[in-house]
Amino acid sequence: MRGTVLYGPGDVRVEDRPDPRIEQPTDAVIRLSATCVCGSDLWPYRGTDKVERPSPMGHEYAGVVEEVGSEVSGIRPGQFVIGSFFASDNTCEICRAGYQSACVHRQPVGAIGTQAEYARIPLADGTLVATPEMPSDDLVPGLLAASDVLGTGWFAADAAEAGPGKTVAVVGDGAVGLLGVLAARQLGAERVVVMSRHESRQDLAREFGATDVVVERGDEGVGRIKDLTDGLGAHSVIEAVGTQESMMQAVRSTRPGGHIGYVGVSHDVELPGQELFYSHVHLHGGPAPVRRYLPELIDLICRREIDPGRVFDLELPLEQAAEGYRAMDERRAIKTLLRP
Amino acid sequence: MRGTVLYGPGDVRVEDRPDPRIEQPTDAVIRLSATCVCGSDLWPYRGTDKVERPSPMGHEYAGVVEEVGSEVSGIRPGQFVIGSFFASDNTCEICRAGYQSACVHRQPVGAIGTQAEYARIPLADGTLVATPEMPSDDLVPGLLAASDVLGTGWFAADAAEAGPGKTVAVVGDGAVGLLGVLAARQLGAERVVVMSRHESRQDLAREFGATDVVVERGDEGVGRIKDLTDGLGAHSVIEAVGTQESMMQAVRSTRPGGHIGYVGVSHDVELPGQELFYSHVHLHGGPAPVRRYLPELIDLICRREIDPGRVFDLELPLEQAAEGYRAMDERRAIKTLLRP
Repeated sequence: MRGTVLYGPGDVRVEDRPDPRIEQPTDAVIRLSATCVCGSDLWPYRGTDKVERPSPMGHEYAGVVEEVGSEVSGIRPGQFVIGSFFASDNTCEICRAGYQSACVHRQPVGAIGTQAEYARIPLADGTLVATPEMPSDDLVPGLLAASDVLGTGWFAADAAEAGPGKTVAVVGDGAVGLLGVLAARQLGAERVVVMSRHESRQDLAREFGATDVVVERGDEGVGRIKDLTDGLGAHSVIEAVGTQESMMQAVRSTRPGGHIGYVGVSHDVELPGQELFYSHVHLHGGPAPVRRYLPELIDLICRREIDPGRVFDLELPLEQAAEGYRAMDERRAIKTLLRP
Repeated sequence: MRGTVLYGPGDVRVEDRPDPRIEQPTDAVIRLSATCVCGSDLWPYRGTDKVERPSPMGHEYAGVVEEVGSEVSGIRPGQFVIGSFFASDNTCEICRAGYQSACVHRQPVGAIGTQAEYARIPLADGTLVATPEMPSDDLVPGLLAASDVLGTGWFAADAAEAGPGKTVAVVGDGAVGLLGVLAARQLGAERVVVMSRHESRQDLAREFGATDVVVERGDEGVGRIKDLTDGLGAHSVIEAVGTQESMMQAVRSTRPGGHIGYVGVSHDVELPGQELFYSHVHLHGGPAPVRRYLPELIDLICRREIDPGRVFDLELPLEQAAEGYRAMDERRAIKTLLRP
């Protein structure tokens, strides 16, 4: 089969890779209907994360089940399925508490690489969620978004306790931040302030339900959030970047007793204990337990109540994956969908 | 009146200080029935926090109202009252959300110094809570504990979401940690593990409801908590120390999705973003909004359902405050009560 491999910074190739097959009786093999490039794929692409050896890329996936292992009972060939970037048994105590991305048997799907024609998905019964019927093609981007960016934005909004009567600030206007806006509104937030200086992203944020846009960053951005909230700060803040600056912007934009949901993978972040202590914020985040939300998100998408696929503003054949990475790296695209 | 003043590291004196008087129409002046030395008083006493000038000491208080300002309507002379270390209006949006220690009009009572015969309490209506009747003398230590250490331990247990079916680990065996044990049990926790290597403190922890004692610290201590929780970590962890080591011990002792309530004033703590991210914990803490809990705590104490006054294992006349500080500094006493 054809699949994407990263050889080093800026060097993404689509090449022949071995066809996946059932290795464990709990595996499934799926044929990808669509896959995509994640903001986190840009860390190794840019050389921020070191690339030790040629690495298959991709951890987002939606497609049709080809084959299942002998112990798989909940999923069957022919079903359209979506899963998350961590395979999980969905039965352990941590999964049952809703933290499938920390499942005691979790396996990173990124190590398998889903920017390809086919993928082997471990722990298929726990990991995959099937749609009620074969979705029409225009729903596929939305369902693919549920696999990571929507699930992650939703977790961030949930962790930030976005809800009725709340003002939610969103730090980060990438796909996750934008879908955090959508999630916050779906969860009933009264006011959603997106922090963005890019017009096209501001426009999409407004389509997703943002009520206000703040273009300032750092202390100035914090000041604007305070201006909008009687000097108190937002009730809920979604952090979807993962830098020292964005984390401190989130902490300082939150009112005492407020909640931060942070999902930007923290790179070289050190949180000053004393400032955090006196901020009185709630802090929760990490790799999103997307599996917790998948049934609800699939339902909302299939009933066309939300259209998270709007974050894909570039669609390319899998063979042109390199251009898909470049466009995101240069911020010409928010998110690239790849069709195998 | 007589009151305690810190002149420099290790130099606490009881001397004549001006009698407090009503300065604002929202003030009350109280006559202290009892006051005490806080673990946080040891930071300047030990020179860890710099002492710039002679400073009145003390922020814990329980006593009888002598006089109130013209705008005070909810509190009257002759009542026995308890308040917290931050005076608060109890009416602003932050107070109404339960974060009175971050009240937009808050005033630190520590700047006034309650290790004295009398104290002026600002924002009396919002700050002070009266007992239903004049308490008998043996209830006074418990009511004094409610002013800070009990309220703080209770907030930590609440922030850690201690409750039925939960295993709670407590990092720190000072007065706050020990009362965190009591709070966790009152909130219904199934199992409370105290981390302590001091026999007398272990004994008191057991009296307060601790089910297990872990004497190991650092990684070994974390390993013991994991052993007690099927390798997963505690559901809830109370952090009541405030050092880098204790914070990391708390983070590493918590299961994914679990909750940390941290109330040790963080000194020189830097939380590594990436480890926190992958830990999946909820983190909440800060200066405890004791006022939120005072009505409930006073009720429990007056009905003799809890006896938090047990943390005072040394009682001295105010005039001997210096010995009270020394005993705590040398860990001969958990907490010193001073009688003016």
